[in-house]
Amino acid sequence: MSAGVPVLAILGGGQLGRMLGLAAARLGVRCRFMDPADNAVAGHVGEIIRDSFEAPARLDEFVRGASAVTYEFENVPAALAERIAAMGVRIHPCPLALRTAQDRLLEKQLFRRLGIGTPDFEAVDTFEAMRAAVERIGLPCVVKTRRYGYDGKGQAVVREPGDLIPAWNLLQKGVPGAHVIEPPAVPLIVEGFVPFDRELSVLAAGGAGGAADERVYPLTENRHEGGILRISRGPAPGLSPALQAEGEAIARRVGEALGYVGLLAVELFQVGERLLANEIAPRVHNSGHWTMDGAVTCQFENHVRAVMGWPLGDASARGCSAMVNLIGSHPPAERLAAIPGVHLHLYGKQPRPGRKLGHLNVVGDSQQEREARLEVVLKAISG
Amino acid sequence: MSAGVPVLAILGGGQLGRMLGLAAARLGVRCRFMDPADNAVAGHVGEIIRDSFEAPARLDEFVRGASAVTYEFENVPAALAERIAAMGVRIHPCPLALRTAQDRLLEKQLFRRLGIGTPDFEAVDTFEAMRAAVERIGLPCVVKTRRYGYDGKGQAVVREPGDLIPAWNLLQKGVPGAHVIEPPAVPLIVEGFVPFDRELSVLAAGGAGGAADERVYPLTENRHEGGILRISRGPAPGLSPALQAEGEAIARRVGEALGYVGLLAVELFQVGERLLANEIAPRVHNSGHWTMDGAVTCQFENHVRAVMGWPLGDASARGCSAMVNLIGSHPPAERLAAIPGVHLHLYGKQPRPGRKLGHLNVVGDSQQEREARLEVVLKAISG
Repeated sequence: MSAGVPVLAILGGGQLGRMLGLAAARLGVRCRFMDPADNAVAGHVGEIIRDSFEAPARLDEFVRGASAVTYEFENVPAALAERIAAMGVRIHPCPLALRTAQDRLLEKQLFRRLGIGTPDFEAVDTFEAMRAAVERIGLPCVVKTRRYGYDGKGQAVVREPGDLIPAWNLLQKGVPGAHVIEPPAVPLIVEGFVPFDRELSVLAAGGAGGAADERVYPLTENRHEGGILRISRGPAPGLSPALQAEGEAIARRVGEALGYVGLLAVELFQVGERLLANEIAPRVHNSGHWTMDGAVTCQFENHVRAVMGWPLGDASARGCSAMVNLIGSHPPAERLAAIPGVHLHLYGKQPRPGRKLGHLNVVGDSQQEREARLEVVLKAISG
Repeated sequence: MSAGVPVLAILGGGQLGRMLGLAAARLGVRCRFMDPADNAVAGHVGEIIRDSFEAPARLDEFVRGASAVTYEFENVPAALAERIAAMGVRIHPCPLALRTAQDRLLEKQLFRRLGIGTPDFEAVDTFEAMRAAVERIGLPCVVKTRRYGYDGKGQAVVREPGDLIPAWNLLQKGVPGAHVIEPPAVPLIVEGFVPFDRELSVLAAGGAGGAADERVYPLTENRHEGGILRISRGPAPGLSPALQAEGEAIARRVGEALGYVGLLAVELFQVGERLLANEIAPRVHNSGHWTMDGAVTCQFENHVRAVMGWPLGDASARGCSAMVNLIGSHPPAERLAAIPGVHLHLYGKQPRPGRKLGHLNVVGDSQQEREARLEVVLKAISG
C-alpha cells in the first residue's frame, strides 16, 4: 500500500463490498477486504485477505495501516467487531449496532423503547411458548429465527393452527415433519402479520460529527418476489413530505440511540399514513442501489465518507429512479447495455439460482418517465 | 480470473486506466493493466502486470483470456499495438489511430485531407527549414515536436526572429543556447498561432457497429494554465446547436477515416463561429472527466462498452457541469469532501509539482448554478 493513500478495511467481499470499494477508489481510498470465500467478487477491485470471520489468522494484516474498519453484511460475528475495536482500531458501524441488527428481538425492543411503531412481537424458545404467542398475537402471523435471516430465509407464515408444527420444525431444523422437533435449538420470534399497503425503506448516513451530522435519503419503495428484493423506486412514488418526515424521524431516533456512524437502512411497512419499522440493516442496502445513479452522493460513497470520518455528501435525489435486481440469471451484458438509458451494474459473479448478479438503474425526470423506462427494462430482461 | 467474467486488458496504469477500471468493474468487466511503473495507481483497482512497453516479457500473460485490449495513453509504442493485433487479439482504438495521434504532422494532414479546418502547419527537419516555414506562416507561431508532446511540453512560441534559435535548441535538446544545435535529432512542426476565442474539445465514442454507431458528447470548454488543463465546462457555456453540429461533424469525419472504435477526443480552437482542429487523443480525455457526474453514460463507460464490442450508452448531459483539476497538491480529502455538492475524484497518487492528483466535478441545473458552484470550489481549494 502506498504511503499517504488512506486504507479502509472491509469485512466481507461480496457485491456490497465491491461497490463500497468502487466508491472508495473514486475518493482516493484504497480498500482491503476479508472474506472466507474462494473467489469473493470484491477481490476483483481490491486486495483480499482470505480468512475466517470466526477464527481469523490474519487479523493484524487486515487492519494494518487502515484508517477505519467497516463491514458489508450483518452476519459478521459481533465478537470479531468487538475484538477489532479492542485493538484500538476505528470500526463503524459500532459493535452495538451490529449486535442489535443481528437479533430480531433486540431490533424490535429498540423500536419499542424509542416509541417507533413496529409489528406486535414476542420472543419464543419452546414450541409451547410459540403456540401461546401465536394465540395472543392472532392469525395470520410470521415466525422467524431471531438471528441469521436474510432474503426471506429463516421465516414461516402461520395462517392456521395446522401450520404451527411445520413452521416450528422448518425453523428448528430446516425440515418440515409431523412431530415437533425437540429440544429447541434455534430461538424464534413471533411477529404479527401487518396488512401493509407497501414496503418502504429509509436510508440514512450518520456522520462522525454527532447526532446532528446525518443525511437521510428520500424513502424508497420496495417490491419483493419470493422474499428477495426485486424492484426499488426512489424517491418512493407519491412520497408526501409528512411520510418522508416520519421516515427521517425513525432513522434519526435509531441512529442516535446506537451512536451510529455509517449507512443505516430501516425496512418499513406503510399502513395508511403510518410507518411501522420491521428491521434494520447496519450497512449499505440493496434498496439504496438506485442512489448510484439517482442521488447526488450514492449510499456507498456516504458510507465510506462516514466511516472514514469525512463530511457527508448531499443525499438529495437527482430525478426519479428505479432499480431492478438481476437474480439467478440474466440476458448477456451486451443486451442489457443496449436498453436505452439504462445504468448497468454487474457484480462479476457466476450465475446461480437465487443469486444477486447485478442490477439495472433507470432515471427519469418525472415519476411518469421512470415508469415508462422501467417498463422497457422489465420487458427487455424478461424477453 | 473467474470463468465467465469478461476481461479487458489495458496498456497503461495511470489515472485514466484507473477510471476505466472503475467503469469496467461497474459493468462486471475485470481489468488487467500493464505498466512499467512501480506503483501505478490503476493497480489499486485491478491486477497489474509490471512490464516494459518497448520490450514486454509478459505479453502472453497480459492478453490471456482478454476479450479486448485498449490503452490509456497515446505514447504506447504503435509497434506494440500492432504486435498485439497480429496475435489475433481485438485491440481498440486501432493501431492506425494510435500512429496518427502520435504524430502532429499525420494528425494535421488527416484534418486537411478531411476538409477540417486546422492551423496552418509545416513539417521541418532542419533549422533552415524551420526558419523558412516561420517566415511563410508568419509570426507569432508555435514550433512543436512532432511526437511525445503532452501538457504543453515539447513546444515553444516564436514571437520574434530572436526566438528562433532558443526555440530550436529547446526542442532539440531541451536546453536553450546561443548556437544552433546540429545535427537535428527531433523532427518538428511549425504551426500558425491561432487567435482563438476559446479552446473546446469534442468527445465521441465510436462503437463496433460501424460509422453510424457513434455517440457524441456536448462540446466542452477548456481553460489551461501553464499548458495543463485546469477547468472544463461541459456542455460549453453558450453552446449553439450550430457549433455542436460542427464539432460533431469533425468527430464523425475523423472517426470514420480511422475506423475508430472507442473514445476519441479532438481538441479544437473556436475562432468566431468556426472550429479549427488542433489535435486528437485516441483515448479517454481529461476534458471528459465532467461526464462522470454530468452525463447519462460517462466517457470511461462508453470507452469500455465500445472496445468490448457492446452497444454504446447515452452521451447526453445531465445538467451543466464543471471540472477542476487538482494539480501538484490539494487540501486534505476531508476538506474537499466538505464542499457542498462536490463530486470528489482522487487518484491515489503521491503529490508532486505539476502532477494531476484528482479532480472535482460540480453539476448545476443551469449555467448560472454551475458558475456559482464552481466559484465555491475554486475558493475552497485556493483557500
